[in-house]
Amino acid sequence: MADALFEKVALIGLGLIGSSLGHAMKRANIARHITGHARSKQTRQTALEIGFVDAVFENMTDAVSDADLVILCVPVGICGSICEQISPHLKQGAIVTDVGSVKVAVVAACARHIPSGVHFVPGHPMAGTEFSGPTSGFAELFDNRWCLLTPLLDGDPQATKKMTEYWQACGANVETMTAQHHDVVAAITSHLPHLIAFNIVGTADDLEDVAEREIIKYAAGGFRDFTRIAASDPTMWRDVFIHNKEAVLEVLGRFNEDLASLAKAIKEEDGYKLYEQFERTRHIRQNILDDERKK
Amino acid sequence: MADALFEKVALIGLGLIGSSLGHAMKRANIARHITGHARSKQTRQTALEIGFVDAVFENMTDAVSDADLVILCVPVGICGSICEQISPHLKQGAIVTDVGSVKVAVVAACARHIPSGVHFVPGHPMAGTEFSGPTSGFAELFDNRWCLLTPLLDGDPQATKKMTEYWQACGANVETMTAQHHDVVAAITSHLPHLIAFNIVGTADDLEDVAEREIIKYAAGGFRDFTRIAASDPTMWRDVFIHNKEAVLEVLGRFNEDLASLAKAIKEEDGYKLYEQFERTRHIRQNILDDERKK
Repeated sequence: MADALFEKVALIGLGLIGSSLGHAMKRANIARHITGHARSKQTRQTALEIGFVDAVFENMTDAVSDADLVILCVPVGICGSICEQISPHLKQGAIVTDVGSVKVAVVAACARHIPSGVHFVPGHPMAGTEFSGPTSGFAELFDNRWCLLTPLLDGDPQATKKMTEYWQACGANVETMTAQHHDVVAAITSHLPHLIAFNIVGTADDLEDVAEREIIKYAAGGFRDFTRIAASDPTMWRDVFIHNKEAVLEVLGRFNEDLASLAKAIKEEDGYKLYEQFERTRHIRQNILDDERKK
Repeated sequence: MADALFEKVALIGLGLIGSSLGHAMKRANIARHITGHARSKQTRQTALEIGFVDAVFENMTDAVSDADLVILCVPVGICGSICEQISPHLKQGAIVTDVGSVKVAVVAACARHIPSGVHFVPGHPMAGTEFSGPTSGFAELFDNRWCLLTPLLDGDPQATKKMTEYWQACGANVETMTAQHHDVVAAITSHLPHLIAFNIVGTADDLEDVAEREIIKYAAGGFRDFTRIAASDPTMWRDVFIHNKEAVLEVLGRFNEDLASLAKAIKEEDGYKLYEQFERTRHIRQNILDDERKK
């Protein structure tokens, strides 16, 4: 059997991403030993029963002890306090990474707690489903998806290289960029779409002229596509919006300006303007499909 | 062979819906003879070659001559003028229907041109894809989808019954409701989602901080779901928004209020409010999935 990439990997958080990483590591023999921590006893037991971790610990400090890689698979809002707690227990030479959808805030909250001699390589696997919890994970979640790494300016290139290998072994394609650029890219490709989806589903639910029953019944006309992403984990997304506030509000401002201009065209029955706007968005879809075919 | 439901059916417009209806009628032997009209000679030739119509005509008046059922499969903006043109050529006892996503405006534009002794039964099959044109149709498009009929108050119940049978034979489930109610239901379940999707794809395309290349590359984070519906036919959607202006602007107003309130919660980092909003939209997704499983 080939050598595992890491001797001991600790998963802090055993939800969709944590459990999927456990499965992916087992699939590709990436870690010789996987420890896990979750706050809930039920979650820890379930994880052990499913077997995507080899051992679970009630105290996260026990889980990270002697680990070569520690992965924070928790909502971005608590990454900082977790780093603070585990900091004294991290092994020299270990790598700490996270899977948060926001990077500037996570770096700001975590980096200062990482001891010298330990390497922090922030990461964001762009993969997910509408399901959560330890039973929702599967080994293929990251296959052919992007994982964005945002190494610190003074970070260790070897640690970044090792995390690149790690994510590739989990099935993902890896790119590196700055945390700042990541947050703008994520704001437009992921955070704003989620905000809009959460919002429109809420608006529909509140209409008094149309029964919820009808919304559900006739959802296939377009609405259905929004409900999938609006069913994503509320805690995760609450943290994303708060911690990527500036980039999200910036792209939301653009979105609102464009929407006001479309509304004006509708009000004025400006068919030319509407047509022009609807026509120009088609090529983006085509390019996405072309991209997927190439993979 | 069982008797066909209609002797002769005329399809005015041979795009996605017209061609799919042709295929669906052939599949279930719904019509003994199917004629077709499209403005473009190329489209007419393609339709004939594919074979989802038995004959094509350059003049729509020839296509509808002697037809028992005439189906307008064209953008809603031109339904009225088509009715005006074909009116003198309609057979006594014939049924005229349409497939438009807007009903009040179509009824207003068409009903006055329908001669006495001819039955107008407005309809809206809630089915579509992002593709258009005579090659995009397929017999299964309407299978298990809803077709909403909005019979006129003084309409012939027998004609409505026959159109119900027609759509069921095409694979669809049929409901009837008033044109007014239809337009509000469609505004929230279909028109607003499309407007939002067209808009966000446009916003993304305009950002100067993120290259279009990156938007396409990282679309899987949520954005991709929007691009599918934003690739729908621009002419059709231009007409939908103009002709369902009031209902669309009404639900858009609600959407904007809700979005402003979410933006405020982000600005104020009001995690409680964000969580509450994101949590309440999950059950709608669950209900949609339960509904689909029952079908």
